[in-house]
Amino acid sequence: MLKIRPIEETDWAATWQVIEPVFRAGETYPFSPGITQEEAHRAWIGMPSATFVAVDATDEILGSYYIKPNQPELGAHVCNGGYIVAERARGRGIASAMCEHSQRQAVSMGFRAMQYNLVVSTNEGAVRLWKKHGFAVVGTLPKAFLHSRLGYVDALVMYKQLQTSYDDHGIESHRPVGGRHRA
Amino acid sequence: MLKIRPIEETDWAATWQVIEPVFRAGETYPFSPGITQEEAHRAWIGMPSATFVAVDATDEILGSYYIKPNQPELGAHVCNGGYIVAERARGRGIASAMCEHSQRQAVSMGFRAMQYNLVVSTNEGAVRLWKKHGFAVVGTLPKAFLHSRLGYVDALVMYKQLQTSYDDHGIESHRPVGGRHRA
Repeated sequence: MLKIRPIEETDWAATWQVIEPVFRAGETYPFSPGITQEEAHRAWIGMPSATFVAVDATDEILGSYYIKPNQPELGAHVCNGGYIVAERARGRGIASAMCEHSQRQAVSMGFRAMQYNLVVSTNEGAVRLWKKHGFAVVGTLPKAFLHSRLGYVDALVMYKQLQTSYDDHGIESHRPVGGRHRA
Repeated sequence: MLKIRPIEETDWAATWQVIEPVFRAGETYPFSPGITQEEAHRAWIGMPSATFVAVDATDEILGSYYIKPNQPELGAHVCNGGYIVAERARGRGIASAMCEHSQRQAVSMGFRAMQYNLVVSTNEGAVRLWKKHGFAVVGTLPKAFLHSRLGYVDALVMYKQLQTSYDDHGIESHRPVGGRHRA
């Protein structure tokens, strides 16, 4: 039984255990493999608008994701997300569950689209998964990622417009019309 | 006679005169049209790795650009740049001169590619200019920019691999081999 809930400060140590090996590996995220715990905290919790953890029935942390605006003000209706699943918990649909959760969360925060800026092309599982969840590869950045083992590899920009409950005719109507949007 | 030189703190007031109307217009940069001078200083000089001004023979500032890494460490070999020409000085090739200068500057700083993340599709002059200087449109982000007059419009991701003086076989050789690279 998987539950996805907002992260709390007391979750950090266990969350760091989950994300540290991924950063250290240098194969999927651009952060330095030598990143400190403080820098990782800032990147994963400090800078983002919201961070969530996926937990099992015993509240053990199996994954985490963040969401944040991808650009300043006039591009801030497009969000960016990052997702990591604990190595021991892979293949159980946790990334899928977080991806779906993050899209609903994004809509509830007033975002209209989601963009992944640097999906490493050799991370085929991730590319396949995001496609399955409706993301399109809008572009390929040649040799934009320095993979720890493989050297310079291509990275993909992936993008999805989100289903919002308000209309889509531009600036006149870009403010949420209902009461459920926070941003 | 156009000269492009590093910005100095004493250039800020004149540079702000050049870039403020562009930010206020909200048609090409994502910054809030209500951005303060302090926020603009941080974005244009504080955060970037280097900022330059284009000046005429009397040292009057006609344009400015910045350059910075587009991603953390494992994506930090790709830079991002932003360019603004004073309204009164347009049509004189200043943007072209800054674009070429920024590419040489990027190579000298050790960057291997340059990426524009959010070229507003309605800014046709810019799109044409960047193409002329060798940038490819690698992707289109549907409705990713909230244009002050036009509402949500598409934005382009543009990218160019730079000619570097060292080879291109990946991580083993990613450190500059000569003495002219600073990064």
